[in-house]
Amino acid sequence: MMCMMSLKCTWECCMQRCARLLASVCRPPLSVSGSLTRPSIRALSLSTTAMAKSKYEYVRHFELDDLCLPNSWIVVRIDGKGFHRFTNEHGFEKPNDAPALELMTRAARDVVDLFRPDLVLAYGQSDEYSFVFRRQTTVYRRRASKLMSQVVSQFSSSYVFHWPSVMGARALRQPPTFDGRVVLYPTDRNLRDYLSWRQADCHINNLYNTAFWALVNRGGVTNAQAEERLRHTLAADKNEILFSEFGINYNDEPALYRKGTVIVRSLETPGEQDSKLSSDTGAPDGSTAPASEGVRTDPKPVGVVKVLNCDIIGDEFWNEHSSVLSGNNKKAK
Amino acid sequence: MMCMMSLKCTWECCMQRCARLLASVCRPPLSVSGSLTRPSIRALSLSTTAMAKSKYEYVRHFELDDLCLPNSWIVVRIDGKGFHRFTNEHGFEKPNDAPALELMTRAARDVVDLFRPDLVLAYGQSDEYSFVFRRQTTVYRRRASKLMSQVVSQFSSSYVFHWPSVMGARALRQPPTFDGRVVLYPTDRNLRDYLSWRQADCHINNLYNTAFWALVNRGGVTNAQAEERLRHTLAADKNEILFSEFGINYNDEPALYRKGTVIVRSLETPGEQDSKLSSDTGAPDGSTAPASEGVRTDPKPVGVVKVLNCDIIGDEFWNEHSSVLSGNNKKAK
Amino acid sequence: MMCMMSLKCTWECCMQRCARLLASVCRPPLSVSGSLTRPSIRALSLSTTAMAKSKYEYVRHFELDDLCLPNSWIVVRIDGKGFHRFTNEHGFEKPNDAPALELMTRAARDVVDLFRPDLVLAYGQSDEYSFVFRRQTTVYRRRASKLMSQVVSQFSSSYVFHWPSVMGARALRQPPTFDGRVVLYPTDRNLRDYLSWRQADCHINNLYNTAFWALVNRGGVTNAQAEERLRHTLAADKNEILFSEFGINYNDEPALYRKGTVIVRSLETPGEQDSKLSSDTGAPDGSTAPASEGVRTDPKPVGVVKVLNCDIIGDEFWNEHSSVLSGNNKKAK
Amino acid sequence: MMCMMSLKCTWECCMQRCARLLASVCRPPLSVSGSLTRPSIRALSLSTTAMAKSKYEYVRHFELDDLCLPNSWIVVRIDGKGFHRFTNEHGFEKPNDAPALELMTRAARDVVDLFRPDLVLAYGQSDEYSFVFRRQTTVYRRRASKLMSQVVSQFSSSYVFHWPSVMGARALRQPPTFDGRVVLYPTDRNLRDYLSWRQADCHINNLYNTAFWALVNRGGVTNAQAEERLRHTLAADKNEILFSEFGINYNDEPALYRKGTVIVRSLETPGEQDSKLSSDTGAPDGSTAPASEGVRTDPKPVGVVKVLNCDIIGDEFWNEHSSVLSGNNKKAK
Repeated sequence: MMCMMSLKCTWECCMQRCARLLASVCRPPLSVSGSLTRPSIRALSLSTTAMAKSKYEYVRHFELDDLCLPNSWIVVRIDGKGFHRFTNEHGFEKPNDAPALELMTRAARDVVDLFRPDLVLAYGQSDEYSFVFRRQTTVYRRRASKLMSQVVSQFSSSYVFHWPSVMGARALRQPPTFDGRVVLYPTDRNLRDYLSWRQADCHINNLYNTAFWALVNRGGVTNAQAEERLRHTLAADKNEILFSEFGINYNDEPALYRKGTVIVRSLETPGEQDSKLSSDTGAPDGSTAPASEGVRTDPKPVGVVKVLNCDIIGDEFWNEHSSVLSGNNKKAK
Repeated sequence: MMCMMSLKCTWECCMQRCARLLASVCRPPLSVSGSLTRPSIRALSLSTTAMAKSKYEYVRHFELDDLCLPNSWIVVRIDGKGFHRFTNEHGFEKPNDAPALELMTRAARDVVDLFRPDLVLAYGQSDEYSFVFRRQTTVYRRRASKLMSQVVSQFSSSYVFHWPSVMGARALRQPPTFDGRVVLYPTDRNLRDYLSWRQADCHINNLYNTAFWALVNRGGVTNAQAEERLRHTLAADKNEILFSEFGINYNDEPALYRKGTVIVRSLETPGEQDSKLSSDTGAPDGSTAPASEGVRTDPKPVGVVKVLNCDIIGDEFWNEHSSVLSGNNKKAK
Repeated sequence: MMCMMSLKCTWECCMQRCARLLASVCRPPLSVSGSLTRPSIRALSLSTTAMAKSKYEYVRHFELDDLCLPNSWIVVRIDGKGFHRFTNEHGFEKPNDAPALELMTRAARDVVDLFRPDLVLAYGQSDEYSFVFRRQTTVYRRRASKLMSQVVSQFSSSYVFHWPSVMGARALRQPPTFDGRVVLYPTDRNLRDYLSWRQADCHINNLYNTAFWALVNRGGVTNAQAEERLRHTLAADKNEILFSEFGINYNDEPALYRKGTVIVRSLETPGEQDSKLSSDTGAPDGSTAPASEGVRTDPKPVGVVKVLNCDIIGDEFWNEHSSVLSGNNKKAK
Repeated sequence: MMCMMSLKCTWECCMQRCARLLASVCRPPLSVSGSLTRPSIRALSLSTTAMAKSKYEYVRHFELDDLCLPNSWIVVRIDGKGFHRFTNEHGFEKPNDAPALELMTRAARDVVDLFRPDLVLAYGQSDEYSFVFRRQTTVYRRRASKLMSQVVSQFSSSYVFHWPSVMGARALRQPPTFDGRVVLYPTDRNLRDYLSWRQADCHINNLYNTAFWALVNRGGVTNAQAEERLRHTLAADKNEILFSEFGINYNDEPALYRKGTVIVRSLETPGEQDSKLSSDTGAPDGSTAPASEGVRTDPKPVGVVKVLNCDIIGDEFWNEHSSVLSGNNKKAK
């Protein structure tokens, strides 16, 4: 914040190091202007401070690098902290609150934009989102802290920023907290299995929650009774409860709830695009492009960002968006 | 988000593992109700997904711990990304924008509250803030990712959340990004030197910026001319320029600008308190207290949080707030 | 060393923790036997020590895990420290000393045996050896320190142990030092490129050294003159010097010198074996099998260890020993 | 091993990078000398290899640094692997084999010499040894792998090297293996507690073993009976057994067994020395001094190495050898 021209900084740091030498040479300030007290003593104390800074700078060496292994997939997963209470306090509809899920994806879009074109895929469900950097990325020298902190920061600030426009009349009563972690996956198979794990988790939780809230909201039972009823049931049992008792065919539930959300940067030709959200993908929002140190500003095409609610466990998605994996293989050594 | 009772999860995971065995035993659903299509096939596919989840769960093992060395000070420093542009876009007053600095501290206060009582001190200046966890903390088993991600997340969401109330009419045009890092300091001396380094940095930058903007705003020179004028000047020279040309005694500038901001959790007896902000420290804001897994909810006194703009390089601050360092020594083995 | 039955250890540790309680209950020893001084006070001091141990055990928590990323190739490379001087002091023949190279491989064989069957390949040249653990290994929970330290320890002690039998009359004048490091490679391609890098290094160094020592030993020039002569020459130039001036066709030099040494654990059927060292590979040396905590003692076939001096840059080696890579893929998730 | 002049290496690496360009310019070798086959094709293949090397060198980037936190104590502990069997196979006297313990210390001395003057203290007992680097050391940039691997390598090779001279007629039947680990301790108190922990461990084990082997060797009971007899005994009980049944006053046992061995680099004035082993400390063994890259070859006094069998839990040792801790404080920032 405020202006800190790096040029003078470097020079001043340098000067601090030889300040003791210069101190003996420096003429005392001569001009006196009226009744104001001379700040000569204060200047001296500041000079001392300046010298002090170089004295303290050894602490820089305590900042150690945490580079990610090259040629491995970097995944940053963020996760809402205490969101059970957060959703209750903000009156989220159960089992799914469509605007709240849209808000998650709106925040995730900002993260994808921030790390363009290195962030090639994101997958979200419930109060979590996973962000996948291409395995060859060299953004911020693959420093785990840099990648993770910026992902979780951008997601958090965007979540609050977009709340009013997405959530409408519901007021945000307190700033939410997300936590984050970095995980590496050495092979394409490991990456796909990781994403399958998250989508399978989405399936299982959503089926349970759909049955649970059908029992509570429409079946008129208590939470404890619903929980007892579902204890030890298998997927087929829950399907049956939904169908025979509430006329719900689970597979007709919105894909957003059953499949979660995939944000993918596709290098496929525009003709192949079939995203229902394609209208907001081509926006030349260069204004939020990362320009600072470390972030690649590649002139190469960054592709089109698509938001989908589709299966990513099977092969179909990966065949249709082959550039996600193969885009890296081309450059893979 | 949404309800995910851990009880059923555990059981279902277990069931998935033996789902193949059960599959042969499960009776096909018998009851048919009217014209709706039976979801039996879909149930089967879901059951497959459930089995799949356990098949994918091996990827958990790729999530490695990053524990901080015990008995060392844990510092998380956050830092605005691209804030030179951000401050210009939002019309921040130069060299210092008091509300913007207050907003930083407002966000930092939320972080301090989140990690109560383990976060014992925070120091902020410009677009950065450093958060100090007590050296004995065991919060989240000292996992660096957990601590860092929650600090940067809370700070980011709180920064956006409090913007309207602190910044008034100025609208936030885009969500800001902060990055973060974790640094360990093994001794009290190293920690104090780290904080001295940041405060010396504040001094040097603020003196430069004060002189620079006096030349530009009141001296009527261009940015380039001001930069040229200040090139190769020492602290005493800048002091002299401010004094003789603009009648500014640098030491009369607000301490907020010259010293930055210290947030300290003091265990000293209430009678000793002299915080000018004490009125907003005793608030029983238990509503935001962390209650989730891992965060200690110690019944012991968490102290009073004070916000100060004082020197932290000399000994005086540390003598007055001796519990910051000694509070740990008592428990130190 | 000496017997330390874990059983009593555990119990005693436990007892120490409640020693204070027991202290009040313990009857003083009654039987007095003659003129010897009662050791009662010493017993007390020992008891204090015992208590002290539990008091100090918190330091265990400073020992942090350093797990290797799952499903990535683990390579431990060891490297002679100060071997330029070591080879001079021990009169190694230049450019290559066949027994010294054999000794390296003899030591490497012991390392391969120690980590049977998880260590699937080793490659050595000059004073270095690289050891490759299969990517799925779970030996010692993939703790980097455990793997690296035991590899470098076994190599070092075996190098000294086998010296007399391999080096004959030449006495070992001082114990050598090796250093080691752990490197992970996420893909098969990366692993093969790593090994190609080391073999290319072998080629380049050996060609240079062969030319250098031909000039010195047979051409009668000084070391400095030979160095000057070879400065800025390409591989073809060195070949030409060897051929036209000394009648040496470089490709007729022993493969041991040109290619280095590959130790491979082959799961191929015995009929395919063509190792010239096959006689010492089938030995059921179960006596040195690792039996301690953590080391897998799989009942499955551990394959036959072959020692080769062949090219490992091209595909032929990998096709013939496909189990090295594919043996892992079978279990790869 | 063998000569690898770094000068040509660097240049050749450089040349490899532009080898493709040069390849078109290189004249084919002209001179033909007699009946030998021209190695031109081979030269080409070598040139290809040379190019290949630069192609493979990207794998260097997979070697990540593992720097130790500055200003913290670095301890490398090595530990015999499978030494219960090793001691049996080599007929070690139970409970203590004096030559075997001397051999451990002889190997540790070489390690202390290798890292002179940065390794300031070592403590050994049973089959383990802990090596303490001064907290300000910058040897090998504090890379954990470098420090740990060289310690464990030197220890292992020295153990085998010195075996004949220390163990006399007993032949070494197989090369032993040690494992190693690096642990950091942020404060002097933590370091002392770590060492106290190891010495308390020595006490407890040795008392148990002394009682156990007295029962077996002199009491004529079986191992199982001795174990049963000692189960659930406290220190005082074992003392009593030794005293009343065997006339052994435990405190008269050799300090070597009860206290373990301390190797300390003392900067105290020579007049203060009281080591009973001082005769072998002043040896000008410059021949084993580290001269390679990274190891400091400070001209400053490296002190006198003393080998002691004294208590290191209490303050007396630390007062007498205050330079071990304070020697660092002087330079501590």
